[in-house]
Amino acid sequence: MEQNRKLVRAERADGVKSRHAILNAAASLATVEGLDGLSIGRLAEHVGMSKSGLYAHFGSKEELQLATIETANGIFQEAVIGPTLSVEDPVERIEALCNAFLYYLERRLFPGGCFFASVAAEYGSHPGAVRERIAGIQGAWMSMLAELGESAQALGLIDPREDPKQLAFEVQAYLLLANMAFVLDDNPLALERARKAVHGRLNLARTAAKADSSTVR
Amino acid sequence: MEQNRKLVRAERADGVKSRHAILNAAASLATVEGLDGLSIGRLAEHVGMSKSGLYAHFGSKEELQLATIETANGIFQEAVIGPTLSVEDPVERIEALCNAFLYYLERRLFPGGCFFASVAAEYGSHPGAVRERIAGIQGAWMSMLAELGESAQALGLIDPREDPKQLAFEVQAYLLLANMAFVLDDNPLALERARKAVHGRLNLARTAAKADSSTVR
Repeated sequence: MEQNRKLVRAERADGVKSRHAILNAAASLATVEGLDGLSIGRLAEHVGMSKSGLYAHFGSKEELQLATIETANGIFQEAVIGPTLSVEDPVERIEALCNAFLYYLERRLFPGGCFFASVAAEYGSHPGAVRERIAGIQGAWMSMLAELGESAQALGLIDPREDPKQLAFEVQAYLLLANMAFVLDDNPLALERARKAVHGRLNLARTAAKADSSTVR
Repeated sequence: MEQNRKLVRAERADGVKSRHAILNAAASLATVEGLDGLSIGRLAEHVGMSKSGLYAHFGSKEELQLATIETANGIFQEAVIGPTLSVEDPVERIEALCNAFLYYLERRLFPGGCFFASVAAEYGSHPGAVRERIAGIQGAWMSMLAELGESAQALGLIDPREDPKQLAFEVQAYLLLANMAFVLDDNPLALERARKAVHGRLNLARTAAKADSSTVR
């Protein structure tokens, strides 16, 4: 009986491990073939498993897609959000997040560039649970940038005339184009341009605040 | 014989018309289903023709994809480039191009947003003739923006310290995010944010030039 229990445990551990490995492979594959190209048959071939073996993990294509999104989100959180958590100054935190994002592109954690930019482009016009979840994650990222801008404004670190949502939009725009250009041209110059654009834009927000406080009107 | 000639002409006109109609449908479909989703079978179903009828027009899926790209490029040129040709001031021309692009999104000429943003995201990591052509069209657009910036600089309209390629990158970034956000959230606010960002960025380039010429150092 003790032996049986061990066997069950081993099987469970195996099951967990392979689910994790399958989902990592699925997230990578989705940035090249699309999340819609992620059929259970195609993925089974890719990871060298039987279709029935995959069905034991995921009941449907949509379940597989949603689980893949969560895995990609975990990778994103660890690579991009995690390293910036200790940065206290909210303006510096925005810049740290952007640089972490560009470094995440540079290391090619996903072969087809940012997972979320890739699947957002694919699922933008396909209503459903997959699009909802992608839009939710994108929205949370944008909100985080905007909230950091609001905190910075409350602390007097950026110009009171700045609209933090507009600032977040502009900064996010540089990251998105960096991703597209890097994937399309395979040229790290796009990452450098984005880094420079983010730095310049944040400096402008900050510089204006300084200029404002030193200007007598 | 005269009658025969008319018949041949009518057939040709018909053939040309239907090729045009097929490619317009293909360009729209590609922004929703992807350019890779554009199989001859899928398109035949969509336009209500037989697969053999479509094969008479396009020998292969790649030929169909390349012809679709040219059709989309024609639509883009007419909607975005055409209306700005009479604008002489190069900085105003950049702004006019950006506003024409945002208006092209707003009118939803393609159901899945900008054709080129959509297929670039899809084909970024698929080497081949399709990717080459998409990268070529994207590159030409970026070069046009950068060359307008260079002309503006030569005319003393923007700050000599501006890098016209960096300026083009930033302006293009706002357009790309506007497209993604508009498609994903279906909210015209993203178009307004991009319009404002472009205007502010160009103004900064111009304002700095003015400030520079009035500053004695």
